[in-house]
Amino acid sequence: MIRFLTAGESHGEGLTGIIDGIPANLYLDRNYINEELRRRQGGFGRSERMKIEKDEAIIISGVSNSYTTGNPITIFIKNRGVNIELGEVTRPRPGHGDLVGALKYNQKGGRNILERASARETAMRVALGSVCKLLLKEFDIEIFSHVINIGGIESNLNYYSNISEMELEKVDESVIRVADKNYEAFMIEKIREAKQEGDTLGGTIEIIIKNVPVGLGSHNNWDSKLDGRLACAIMSIPGIKGIDFGLGNRVVSTLGSRFHDEIIFNETYKRKSNNAGGIEAGISNGEDIVFKCYMKPIPTLKKPLETIDMETKEKALAQFERSDVCAVPSASIVAESMAAYVLANEFMKKFGGDFLEEVKSNYYNYVKYLNNR
Amino acid sequence: MIRFLTAGESHGEGLTGIIDGIPANLYLDRNYINEELRRRQGGFGRSERMKIEKDEAIIISGVSNSYTTGNPITIFIKNRGVNIELGEVTRPRPGHGDLVGALKYNQKGGRNILERASARETAMRVALGSVCKLLLKEFDIEIFSHVINIGGIESNLNYYSNISEMELEKVDESVIRVADKNYEAFMIEKIREAKQEGDTLGGTIEIIIKNVPVGLGSHNNWDSKLDGRLACAIMSIPGIKGIDFGLGNRVVSTLGSRFHDEIIFNETYKRKSNNAGGIEAGISNGEDIVFKCYMKPIPTLKKPLETIDMETKEKALAQFERSDVCAVPSASIVAESMAAYVLANEFMKKFGGDFLEEVKSNYYNYVKYLNNR
Amino acid sequence: MIRFLTAGESHGEGLTGIIDGIPANLYLDRNYINEELRRRQGGFGRSERMKIEKDEAIIISGVSNSYTTGNPITIFIKNRGVNIELGEVTRPRPGHGDLVGALKYNQKGGRNILERASARETAMRVALGSVCKLLLKEFDIEIFSHVINIGGIESNLNYYSNISEMELEKVDESVIRVADKNYEAFMIEKIREAKQEGDTLGGTIEIIIKNVPVGLGSHNNWDSKLDGRLACAIMSIPGIKGIDFGLGNRVVSTLGSRFHDEIIFNETYKRKSNNAGGIEAGISNGEDIVFKCYMKPIPTLKKPLETIDMETKEKALAQFERSDVCAVPSASIVAESMAAYVLANEFMKKFGGDFLEEVKSNYYNYVKYLNNR
Amino acid sequence: MIRFLTAGESHGEGLTGIIDGIPANLYLDRNYINEELRRRQGGFGRSERMKIEKDEAIIISGVSNSYTTGNPITIFIKNRGVNIELGEVTRPRPGHGDLVGALKYNQKGGRNILERASARETAMRVALGSVCKLLLKEFDIEIFSHVINIGGIESNLNYYSNISEMELEKVDESVIRVADKNYEAFMIEKIREAKQEGDTLGGTIEIIIKNVPVGLGSHNNWDSKLDGRLACAIMSIPGIKGIDFGLGNRVVSTLGSRFHDEIIFNETYKRKSNNAGGIEAGISNGEDIVFKCYMKPIPTLKKPLETIDMETKEKALAQFERSDVCAVPSASIVAESMAAYVLANEFMKKFGGDFLEEVKSNYYNYVKYLNNR
Repeated sequence: MIRFLTAGESHGEGLTGIIDGIPANLYLDRNYINEELRRRQGGFGRSERMKIEKDEAIIISGVSNSYTTGNPITIFIKNRGVNIELGEVTRPRPGHGDLVGALKYNQKGGRNILERASARETAMRVALGSVCKLLLKEFDIEIFSHVINIGGIESNLNYYSNISEMELEKVDESVIRVADKNYEAFMIEKIREAKQEGDTLGGTIEIIIKNVPVGLGSHNNWDSKLDGRLACAIMSIPGIKGIDFGLGNRVVSTLGSRFHDEIIFNETYKRKSNNAGGIEAGISNGEDIVFKCYMKPIPTLKKPLETIDMETKEKALAQFERSDVCAVPSASIVAESMAAYVLANEFMKKFGGDFLEEVKSNYYNYVKYLNNR
Repeated sequence: MIRFLTAGESHGEGLTGIIDGIPANLYLDRNYINEELRRRQGGFGRSERMKIEKDEAIIISGVSNSYTTGNPITIFIKNRGVNIELGEVTRPRPGHGDLVGALKYNQKGGRNILERASARETAMRVALGSVCKLLLKEFDIEIFSHVINIGGIESNLNYYSNISEMELEKVDESVIRVADKNYEAFMIEKIREAKQEGDTLGGTIEIIIKNVPVGLGSHNNWDSKLDGRLACAIMSIPGIKGIDFGLGNRVVSTLGSRFHDEIIFNETYKRKSNNAGGIEAGISNGEDIVFKCYMKPIPTLKKPLETIDMETKEKALAQFERSDVCAVPSASIVAESMAAYVLANEFMKKFGGDFLEEVKSNYYNYVKYLNNR
Repeated sequence: MIRFLTAGESHGEGLTGIIDGIPANLYLDRNYINEELRRRQGGFGRSERMKIEKDEAIIISGVSNSYTTGNPITIFIKNRGVNIELGEVTRPRPGHGDLVGALKYNQKGGRNILERASARETAMRVALGSVCKLLLKEFDIEIFSHVINIGGIESNLNYYSNISEMELEKVDESVIRVADKNYEAFMIEKIREAKQEGDTLGGTIEIIIKNVPVGLGSHNNWDSKLDGRLACAIMSIPGIKGIDFGLGNRVVSTLGSRFHDEIIFNETYKRKSNNAGGIEAGISNGEDIVFKCYMKPIPTLKKPLETIDMETKEKALAQFERSDVCAVPSASIVAESMAAYVLANEFMKKFGGDFLEEVKSNYYNYVKYLNNR
Repeated sequence: MIRFLTAGESHGEGLTGIIDGIPANLYLDRNYINEELRRRQGGFGRSERMKIEKDEAIIISGVSNSYTTGNPITIFIKNRGVNIELGEVTRPRPGHGDLVGALKYNQKGGRNILERASARETAMRVALGSVCKLLLKEFDIEIFSHVINIGGIESNLNYYSNISEMELEKVDESVIRVADKNYEAFMIEKIREAKQEGDTLGGTIEIIIKNVPVGLGSHNNWDSKLDGRLACAIMSIPGIKGIDFGLGNRVVSTLGSRFHDEIIFNETYKRKSNNAGGIEAGISNGEDIVFKCYMKPIPTLKKPLETIDMETKEKALAQFERSDVCAVPSASIVAESMAAYVLANEFMKKFGGDFLEEVKSNYYNYVKYLNNR
């Protein structure tokens, strides 16, 4: 089983993550991890901060000569620009954790909460998720994401069946991670407008996971279902308010006879369609795993919302902290990372093994079995 | 911490559930539990089976003179009509667990899988969830649900802000649990049509949880977030393919300035709106918790889909097992139950306590603190 | 991962257990399970109750045609003689859970506590443990136990290195599960004496697990160590107050040069001795796993101890509930069962797999690797 | 719930720990943590290394102005003397993790294993345990330890009932943490002898926890018992091979009538004796929690044991790494720390609360209830 904890605040010394359960003898390419961090930091609509800071993963434990040892892996990411004067936040921002956190943890204001509830924390999830991605890559499992909607402008390539693997691979070339060049411009314009008005935007992300074997997750008990576990991990990303698999919410208006993915056989069992998004009864069915996440607009607005001053209980305008206009492209990388964690964990639960060669033997052994079904 | 396991198959002797961590001295009204089971069994569009069987919860342990003792509680629900001849299922139904389960667990066909992956299992979740509801009721936390869409027909009362608590309380009077009398008829007609055509329907459910205190869940680590935990539990319900909170996927086309729920103060902190669905930064904010679930059409069709015979590898028509046309009303009760479990568990984590009086003291102590903030 | 919950009280309808994570296609011999239950019920020094009641495991779910299906397995054991008038227990027995439980769970007296804290609960652990044993047997892992001390009388065969596998297999022939025929008589006499005096006895058990492969458990983090996990499971058995591995507490007076088990090579790595009891750095080392458990005397005495009446707060004599004089032989079977659970769980974590054939392939694959080291 | 992960190797950059679930507003005295680290580093019989290195805890997250914030706390301890040339370890030391780890994780030799399996890792447990101690201190719960046996020489003050709180407080003044001045000299002499002979020594530690309220842990299910949880945590300390509570293994030769702690009433329920070591039925009973741990001699000997060279499969002498002669005094601090973690975790489970004031209200509320029983 793979488990991890992260810690660290936005303006503290840095972020720390420990991940336990990664098998030994996996090549851990530090450049890859840093490249993933860079992917998260990119994107049009980010604040100035992103442009100065370039996150770098420092691997403190669990790796010897670039190979994992089976020991828990520690990654540290230094914060930059820490020496800013930071006051208490007593005019909490609606939509952020400022008020609820201050009440839950009996803090005078939101400062200690927002430092942790901030999306800064997700940098560590990307770092640890990239370790999981490297493990999955050993089994050809690849995770893609693309942005399909920003602020209500929806791309034509808004469903995975319309988009080729080649197009997916090029998504990183877009500053907002949109595959559809025509819509990209409209979306960028939308972000520009929102920025001018001191407003913020949400959007939609689609995640596509390729080469997942049949049989991850289980129908057995409620907490073993692959879709449930993915939903938990994805919904935990700041700003994500919804998730749906395959056809998504169009599922409700589709007849059963049109929805379910008919089974064919061509060396192995396959499907004519993939409306289910690759999961049936909480178990991966061998098709691509596909889901969409819906992200709310960033809660920190230049044109601030109404709130209450926690000291005086008077009406006030919400405090402004340096922030982005639209974090959807960035969140898509975080979503990839959390998906990578869930998949890697389910993979290890199914295949066992303490070192990569063992995991591989077990995996190929299962593939051979499948090929004889 | 509250935890539970369920077990049992559709045509086995019955369903068993054990729930651990319910505090002592809670009055456990058996009629209430059975009434909840009855609510799940109702609904237009259910198969004949539902009409004969009336589930009844047998409490085997953990309760003395109708009060919980702190010991783990066992509930058993007897299956009826068990003596049916049950053959192997080698023509797996697309959308059901038949094929994936048979491959994962190396079963000749889907029989042993479908017996567990079947929605029958959710009866036990309702029984155990009703125990959690009884606990939450002691703190005035009430969980409502209503159906807002069946097969693409969407009620006008499709958002919690349009529907009063009184209307919610009357939802049970509708055979399909729809609040909007005008649309109810259309939906029933839609189900009738689908039945005639041997087809099935999905739909949308909205869950509304009232009187949740500020501070359940935490922004602290990814697996502590209340929305993530709810998403995991709800997505684990057979057929549910999506979940979103508050405004739902409309979030992507709403500007930040319009989305976030401005803060006011009137004895305690309140909000002008509830677009967030009662959760910010993974923490309940004191507003109603609101989310929607999207359910796929039932995978068992009278007009069967194409599949492969697992023995011959030839094309075939999927096996038919007695089934419903539309299980959305029933699923709404299951969704209430899983939400009840998650809330009760988070409640116990925050307030601690081994017996009800202790939990109450701790709770009121916190409420007093909140009233002074 | 294998997990389980048990529930049920001594005088309730019966005991229920659900075990989740047992791979599919394991032959589940009901006679074996019942034979294990019978082993637990035997033993000189048991109360009359044991003689009338013969526990029987009823398998309610998770098994089809005697083979596991991958679904969670429910076992039920009916209580007999339930129709006894049961009053509140307000004169709590020192050493039992009566007082502490009544205080923790705010019960008037100890009745609801003792019904669960009673050793009756361990019958279900034996039933579920026997499922784990059947899994382990598929890999030739065998668990033995013998009693080496009762009430201070210590057998000469008090250490596993003095006792052959053949002798271990014959232990069940002794009414007190003692291998040393000479000492058996003394111990039985000791029990007789204690009975006459209305007193009770504790004792020592040794557990020996054969054919455990190198590599279960991990040195990685505190909660992954095999010895820690065994200690948790064994200490959870009512009455067990201590556990030690290998040489046991003689470890403190043995020099390092005499204690550590020197490594030799004979086709695979072996040891000259097994003072460590088969575990180094929290990992099984391929030698027999050996540990001792120390059991306190039963807290229910015919010659009752002093206590306080919880209603009057006056001095009183502790209530007497029908009870045994010495439960050490019985506890040895429970200890086997809990050890079986821990081993099976660690086994599944290392080897993965959802069905027995898959687990076996993975296991043999690892054995082949080991043979090449 | 409190949980933690540690990571880091002996000769890596340092040790990292993340602890999650500590309530907000706890004063976190860094000097106290460092003082605890110093206590662990002391002791006659330690290697030269200990004398140069002075561990220091660097708090990286979760604390603001010396108070916890509810955010996860990261502690880092830098290693010193890291720039040593480190070769592979192919002549594994019997008793250490070298061989088993290398086999389990498919490493050429033991280097990557021993770097983690080394007792160096326990420094982080002491640091995180000291956070737990600070939490417990707020409720007057104090944890003491003393060494009662080294290499077979047993102190006269070998049982908690013979030693006063004042004597316990002075134990730190002894270089080997022995309360009995007469025996201290013999033990030191024993260590000197062993050192001269290139040998190593084990010993016995007693832990005493004062002011634990009735009601931590539960009899409910096997994995909820306080003694089981303590046993798991203590057995996870490198070198510990046994644990027993209260009277310890003398329990087996004590009659029930002499063993069980009779109940008296003097404002609250109390006991005439404490043979049970403060735990009945897996629940704390309000008396001091008392247990002993048995530690094996250090497996690294200057006079090396026989082993096998993993490269040649020839007989060889085990590799020597710089090491101590006797680590018992040091292990006693680690045992305190692990006990602190378990107690703090159980405390938070029972009393709930997200900030210290809330935990205190809940706690005093329970104390008031207890005083009325």
